[in-house]
Amino acid sequence: MSMLENMVDVIIIGSGIAGLSAALYTARYELSTIVIGAELGGATSTAWTIENYPGFKEIDGYDLIIKVKEQVEALGAKVIADKIEKITKTDEGFELTGESGQSYQARSVIFTHGAARRKLNLPKEDDFSLGKGVHYCTTCDGPLYKGKTIAIVGSGDASVKGALLAVQYAEKIYMIVRGDGLHPEPINAERLKPYLGTKVEVLPNSQVKEILGDSRLTGVKLANDQELKLDGLFIEIGAIPEMKLVESLGVKLDQHGYVAVNNMMETNIEGVLAAGDATNFFGHFKQDITAAAMGAVAATSAFNHLQKPK
Amino acid sequence: MSMLENMVDVIIIGSGIAGLSAALYTARYELSTIVIGAELGGATSTAWTIENYPGFKEIDGYDLIIKVKEQVEALGAKVIADKIEKITKTDEGFELTGESGQSYQARSVIFTHGAARRKLNLPKEDDFSLGKGVHYCTTCDGPLYKGKTIAIVGSGDASVKGALLAVQYAEKIYMIVRGDGLHPEPINAERLKPYLGTKVEVLPNSQVKEILGDSRLTGVKLANDQELKLDGLFIEIGAIPEMKLVESLGVKLDQHGYVAVNNMMETNIEGVLAAGDATNFFGHFKQDITAAAMGAVAATSAFNHLQKPK
Repeated sequence: MSMLENMVDVIIIGSGIAGLSAALYTARYELSTIVIGAELGGATSTAWTIENYPGFKEIDGYDLIIKVKEQVEALGAKVIADKIEKITKTDEGFELTGESGQSYQARSVIFTHGAARRKLNLPKEDDFSLGKGVHYCTTCDGPLYKGKTIAIVGSGDASVKGALLAVQYAEKIYMIVRGDGLHPEPINAERLKPYLGTKVEVLPNSQVKEILGDSRLTGVKLANDQELKLDGLFIEIGAIPEMKLVESLGVKLDQHGYVAVNNMMETNIEGVLAAGDATNFFGHFKQDITAAAMGAVAATSAFNHLQKPK
Repeated sequence: MSMLENMVDVIIIGSGIAGLSAALYTARYELSTIVIGAELGGATSTAWTIENYPGFKEIDGYDLIIKVKEQVEALGAKVIADKIEKITKTDEGFELTGESGQSYQARSVIFTHGAARRKLNLPKEDDFSLGKGVHYCTTCDGPLYKGKTIAIVGSGDASVKGALLAVQYAEKIYMIVRGDGLHPEPINAERLKPYLGTKVEVLPNSQVKEILGDSRLTGVKLANDQELKLDGLFIEIGAIPEMKLVESLGVKLDQHGYVAVNNMMETNIEGVLAAGDATNFFGHFKQDITAAAMGAVAATSAFNHLQKPK
């Protein structure tokens, strides 16, 4: 049967650190493995300098991803650029279809597709996000704004880390925060201090009401009608999991909308595992090291599943 | 008060990958941190070549430990060689006493002391383990037996990995297994195949009854009275958690005798966390990557605990 000939042991959906770490383990378990992801590296590859992955004092997120990808490919796993759009259960396992039109068959599936960045959902936001002044990752696109004025929306660690990068090149940085102030990791709060009141201006209790500009962003209007003239707007307000594909398979989500998994990264469906930011396993604590560990655990559960007599 | 002056935010008991990873995170959270361990690196430092830590295609266990130790010390955490023998709860936190006689105070404690290796509990075993032919880590001490005859006790992945190393230098390797055969990871089973029946001889359904030798090991007698002439005996039959210290504090253990933790690595006692092989969080799956992740999670829980208003 041609279908079975093309069937692999494990398909991993998502090529971020969780997916690649899962592949490292499935490949070591000698399971035939395909990693399929739309954007190699996911959130990690856009993470600028990572300083909290044990073993690397400092490593660029993309470099870490390339290292693990090479590690995985050396063991025989394939890493394919495609976006899975459909998945169905078959007698033998699962059938998947990519955006490319390609179909794939696997005995087990590991979801490691992460969570997409949250948007403001304002007019012009989508249009301007195509290289016209609206961005979702300061650490990725910030360097484009040397000597310019930018605003970062959001009060969390991501926005402060973004600001800490941006002070190195931007002329002026507004931080637009909904509440009373910033809530980064203390080490990053400390690092930001010297810049507060000089390059960095925090605007508490504020919100973007309107994105200004015709062919590209020229500024924003805040809820209090204050206008800021800007060259770039960076929206760093968290992530939102995309679960249509997961739900189409009948996989249960948790109360926060992430894939519900047990300690061994098993979902409610036999042969379907999940790892990384697609789950909420360690709550808000979503790190490269935890995603990598979850990937390894999911791989082990896939191995155990495939070892079971049918 | 002198006691409070010496008090740090976090003491981490154990300087393996879990403890050092925890320190990496607590130090980044700007918590004053001391890591106290009897043997730097724990099980990881004796792991020979590690090939399944995402980011390193191949790294010596000890080298990985040194990398993380340096990463941690650069952030201001202290790594101290001592063995904690006593711990009590105080009004402000915890007081600890080391084998050295030194006392330590901390607001929170993370147990990452791992699990000790299991012994055969035979006469002469302890005596001969002091450099006289009995060992518990083939990958650490195997290279001492170039051109010699050794036996490895145990059927799991550790014993097979040990054998795979040993074939590079030993003349002859007996594998003494209680059951019908070996149960390593498939990739390691595959790797061992070429040596079976030549350098490596598996002795199924066998057990060491007696350790032979006067001043040092000269061989073993098996349960069926067969005698093997040996230069070295490697006992690779798993680990056993040492929980006296943990229990003295009232920390609850799980059914397997490991520290019971929830998803955030919290124990039943406020301010007491655990991570790594001292827990059974991912079951039998005890890896460097999972230990490192658990350490990071425990650190975050310590941070959250210390942030709480008293």
